[in-house]
Amino acid sequence: MSNRPIAAIILAAGKGTRMKSSLHKVLHEVAGRSMIEHLLSSVEELGPQKLVTIVGESREQLEERLASRVAFAVQEPQLGTGHAVQQAEEALSGFEGDVLVLYGDVPFVKASTMQAMIERLRGDDAPAAVVLGFEPDDPLRYGRVVSQQGRILKMVEYKDATEDERACRMCNSGLLAARSEDLFALLARVKNENAQAEYYLPDIVNIAIADGRSCAVVSCDSADEVAGINSRAELAAAEAQWQAYKRGEVMEGGATLRAPETVFFSYDTAIAADVVIEPNVVFGPGVSVAAGATIKAFSHLEGARVGENADVGPYARLRPGSVMEKDSKIGNFVEMKKATLGEGAKASHLTYLGDATVGAGANIGAGTITCNYDGYFKHKTTIGPRAFIGSNSSLIAPVTIGADAIVAAGSAVSRDVGEGELRMVRADQMVKPGWADRFHDTMKKKKAAEKK
Amino acid sequence: MSNRPIAAIILAAGKGTRMKSSLHKVLHEVAGRSMIEHLLSSVEELGPQKLVTIVGESREQLEERLASRVAFAVQEPQLGTGHAVQQAEEALSGFEGDVLVLYGDVPFVKASTMQAMIERLRGDDAPAAVVLGFEPDDPLRYGRVVSQQGRILKMVEYKDATEDERACRMCNSGLLAARSEDLFALLARVKNENAQAEYYLPDIVNIAIADGRSCAVVSCDSADEVAGINSRAELAAAEAQWQAYKRGEVMEGGATLRAPETVFFSYDTAIAADVVIEPNVVFGPGVSVAAGATIKAFSHLEGARVGENADVGPYARLRPGSVMEKDSKIGNFVEMKKATLGEGAKASHLTYLGDATVGAGANIGAGTITCNYDGYFKHKTTIGPRAFIGSNSSLIAPVTIGADAIVAAGSAVSRDVGEGELRMVRADQMVKPGWADRFHDTMKKKKAAEKK
Amino acid sequence: MSNRPIAAIILAAGKGTRMKSSLHKVLHEVAGRSMIEHLLSSVEELGPQKLVTIVGESREQLEERLASRVAFAVQEPQLGTGHAVQQAEEALSGFEGDVLVLYGDVPFVKASTMQAMIERLRGDDAPAAVVLGFEPDDPLRYGRVVSQQGRILKMVEYKDATEDERACRMCNSGLLAARSEDLFALLARVKNENAQAEYYLPDIVNIAIADGRSCAVVSCDSADEVAGINSRAELAAAEAQWQAYKRGEVMEGGATLRAPETVFFSYDTAIAADVVIEPNVVFGPGVSVAAGATIKAFSHLEGARVGENADVGPYARLRPGSVMEKDSKIGNFVEMKKATLGEGAKASHLTYLGDATVGAGANIGAGTITCNYDGYFKHKTTIGPRAFIGSNSSLIAPVTIGADAIVAAGSAVSRDVGEGELRMVRADQMVKPGWADRFHDTMKKKKAAEKK
Repeated sequence: MSNRPIAAIILAAGKGTRMKSSLHKVLHEVAGRSMIEHLLSSVEELGPQKLVTIVGESREQLEERLASRVAFAVQEPQLGTGHAVQQAEEALSGFEGDVLVLYGDVPFVKASTMQAMIERLRGDDAPAAVVLGFEPDDPLRYGRVVSQQGRILKMVEYKDATEDERACRMCNSGLLAARSEDLFALLARVKNENAQAEYYLPDIVNIAIADGRSCAVVSCDSADEVAGINSRAELAAAEAQWQAYKRGEVMEGGATLRAPETVFFSYDTAIAADVVIEPNVVFGPGVSVAAGATIKAFSHLEGARVGENADVGPYARLRPGSVMEKDSKIGNFVEMKKATLGEGAKASHLTYLGDATVGAGANIGAGTITCNYDGYFKHKTTIGPRAFIGSNSSLIAPVTIGADAIVAAGSAVSRDVGEGELRMVRADQMVKPGWADRFHDTMKKKKAAEKK
Repeated sequence: MSNRPIAAIILAAGKGTRMKSSLHKVLHEVAGRSMIEHLLSSVEELGPQKLVTIVGESREQLEERLASRVAFAVQEPQLGTGHAVQQAEEALSGFEGDVLVLYGDVPFVKASTMQAMIERLRGDDAPAAVVLGFEPDDPLRYGRVVSQQGRILKMVEYKDATEDERACRMCNSGLLAARSEDLFALLARVKNENAQAEYYLPDIVNIAIADGRSCAVVSCDSADEVAGINSRAELAAAEAQWQAYKRGEVMEGGATLRAPETVFFSYDTAIAADVVIEPNVVFGPGVSVAAGATIKAFSHLEGARVGENADVGPYARLRPGSVMEKDSKIGNFVEMKKATLGEGAKASHLTYLGDATVGAGANIGAGTITCNYDGYFKHKTTIGPRAFIGSNSSLIAPVTIGADAIVAAGSAVSRDVGEGELRMVRADQMVKPGWADRFHDTMKKKKAAEKK
Repeated sequence: MSNRPIAAIILAAGKGTRMKSSLHKVLHEVAGRSMIEHLLSSVEELGPQKLVTIVGESREQLEERLASRVAFAVQEPQLGTGHAVQQAEEALSGFEGDVLVLYGDVPFVKASTMQAMIERLRGDDAPAAVVLGFEPDDPLRYGRVVSQQGRILKMVEYKDATEDERACRMCNSGLLAARSEDLFALLARVKNENAQAEYYLPDIVNIAIADGRSCAVVSCDSADEVAGINSRAELAAAEAQWQAYKRGEVMEGGATLRAPETVFFSYDTAIAADVVIEPNVVFGPGVSVAAGATIKAFSHLEGARVGENADVGPYARLRPGSVMEKDSKIGNFVEMKKATLGEGAKASHLTYLGDATVGAGANIGAGTITCNYDGYFKHKTTIGPRAFIGSNSSLIAPVTIGADAIVAAGSAVSRDVGEGELRMVRADQMVKPGWADRFHDTMKKKKAAEKK
């Protein structure tokens, strides 16, 4: 393999009008990650020396999010794909190597496909450009790559194609690789003599061919890989396709998904073998689930680590920073956030654990709330091993409950509780015999009077 | 356009045996609205002067629900569709105009289709009747409308049809339009000389043709439009079809549906652009969601207004009368009912807000309950702007919490709290050092003894 | 019909490597019941005298679960299906009758199909063996049953089959019936002269045919019936197929499923007519729902009985031992376990009812918790008819609340409350005018200081 450096130019200046969104098109998410970050993560596998993103409208959104990963070049006005790529020339001045042209709204091109394009570009016949083609079931009105044994004869738009050319099933994905020195030299010769008065990137291939140079087409495995996302419906379709793939992979890895079509993963969800996932579970980014754990129906996890044989849900919500150790349990209507639940500890019902550490074997009663917020600052709750927190307790942070301590049901605990201590915050039981009977009488009369 | 008045006769006397229901067939719901109300809402777009519903068994259910919108005529016994339509004669006495015959269990006929039937009826050739035809993928055993260039030659039941007639793909939907003066005159001539001894509505077409009059067929766009609903499975299929259409419409309008197939809308749900809806959300009737709002997974909304950039869920339940102002937040396991949450106010966890008004910027702690019911009457809770309600508080309505006031965690507040005031309802912290340790010892012994 | 006894041999010694599970393959569940228990439940309908399960690896898992229903025979090492069946010989010594060979990972063979195999075996031509065949859409590489009018000419593996034999669409399911005396005699003559050096069960058919005996094929209705489950994906597919069938059956029975594809039943779920089930409901084993009940979205039921016209959910979780009487209501974020809710009683919000009995017409306020666990033992709560439990109350079991009694909101009740009595456990309301305002000032300064 050559040691020539690689750069990529990512086109993301388009308006994305069909999304009807104030959010930049390429920032819309699939599987919990924006389109352009999916693409970046693939291209970064090639170890590129330079990444230049071509931006236009709403560019501040991209600049804010991606400043640490890419350089930017502005295209304004927008005069076609060839013109867009040209805007990267300055950002790539001094760079000499192989350049990939990618699209922010074509996010699922595999790193291996990009690699194949680069390798073809470095082939013995030294092609001036390598085009990524695809063969859809129905080629429709895509531009065609007319080729013979991988060597391009002509790039042609559908509307300009002859019957013979239209019969050719290899379509142009738009993706292309070329050496930096060729790319900008060829682009400078592209003309905008067409109805839209635009500079088209594929024209460089025809120009190179006219120069007598060879240009090559490389085909990707599936048309899905180069599908563009231009509307919310296409976004949803991409999500569905991604999820179907991931579900298969997770089952292949030995997890049971009782109803795979109702489980939604994120791009980085890690599920071990012998995990059981019931219907209707949503995984946000940053979740790992260890072997033997069960995720019951209607659970929602994000930024959470679920330990071995842990029991989650139904209706458990794990927010970022949740850590469940081995054999621990989070039950129904329980929320965790920035909290650790020790080995074998349980919070089974109607509880909020925020900014908290719960020791091994502790039992958090139903209705327990860690009062972590005073309206201005967040405070921490620490619960010792084997502590027993009675139901409907409020733990007013910062507060520490010692090992083996007991908090009586219904207590609002604002001071630390020592090890093995009982804390009870409860007024005297006031009894009024007959009061309820008298109340019922009065109210029934009132109710009756009201109806008159 | 003619100014002749329009009437519609809606057939709804059928038993609906296959539904196996004590609820009248046409009252079963699709997208949160009964079949017959879907149909009424379409026909009402034509501004009809009279609407007559033909009822039979369980007619009291329809009379109760629809008395303000339609007149009723009883068909008893039920001797066929022609006989059913005849029952409307008295209710339409004095009415002179164009009459549509519709079916309560064929609820998704578009107003534009009905309009097309009426317009055709008013055509220069003055047809005696206009039949709505449809061309299903597989015409099966539907009755055929044998026609030439839109002019009907013959209406024929499948079982009586010749091979040639069966080859005709235009089927009879059952819907029909005719002038009032023609309709009842022709019906009076229909005979019941058939195996079922029933009076069939389509016979009027053949009678009119035999009289030398012209009859016309109008075709609807899709067979789905005239699909009848006769079983729970067909009801579910209609729901699925309706939802698929609506999801597409919502995405087209600029909302993100991460998993459209898991989101269920009602007939009147209004979703603005740049709304994000996570998987598994159910919208009951009467919901509007403003731009930029996010509806997280497992949320259930009904009769609710969600303001701009508001944040809902996961696991949020908004019941009728819920109003969330701009930038407000309802989090997990929170229920709202007849309540308003002011701009930027938050109720993030495990809370019930019923019959309440929450001021802008207020913070409602986890586990807060508005105790709105005393067993007889409902009472109101008013929370001022920027108030802070500590966790696990019970606000015993009627009660008012002033602006900037603080309620301490775990308090049951039964008297008003003034502006900027602190209210705390909490007994002394009772400490029993060593008590828990002794308790653990005793219980462990008891447990051990039990096992022996 | 013959009175000969029936036995079944169930093969379950396979490793199930593709499941990647520490759980035995045939213990993986479909519709809340393990594969092998589905199969057992069908074969038991035939009243078999003996059931022998052939086990190998992880056999202790099967022995523990199924000891009361079947005998076991160990196959070790595993030398093919013929060898597996041979291991049952000892367990069946003394048994004389008709033997079915079944597979633990082919769980959905109907009892009627097994019966048909037995009946064919008892036919006048006394076949030596009856093979269960199936005709898949695409016969692929299944072994073929070459037959003429139900009489088998030859069993042939796909790889050994001629073109003509491959054209035969009847495939071998592996299931087989034979008289005990024939089965083991024939098996003793099977050789392992093949690439895998295994003893194949179908060889007994060819041996019998060579002996001049007749062997018969019986065909099952659908290839789905004999589909084997070898991976998590196939497990999920079987679940999907089972659910689709059950949903249809439930709708046919007169229940409304607004979105059938989102409702998951268990093998024994019983749903009456005129039950309405909203989207996203999960039924674990042991649930019955009576007529007129409504199960709202996001509900999760297991081991529960829901009475007539009861109202469940949304977000209701009924755990084993939950009984809801007629007209009772369990609302959002409410959990029940080993608890009975009397006629017309309500627990509408954020409540945990565990080990409890609630009388008719009682009202359980939002946030009520039955504190049933002291860390060592579970205790019972009894609530009388028409009692009113105020919000956020903790009922510390064992405790009894009398009829018509009232518990004030926010009370932690540790002693019995008499009939018609009011119990309130609440400290004095402590008021600090201006305190909150001063707190806000201090905190704002602190916050500001922090930012510097």
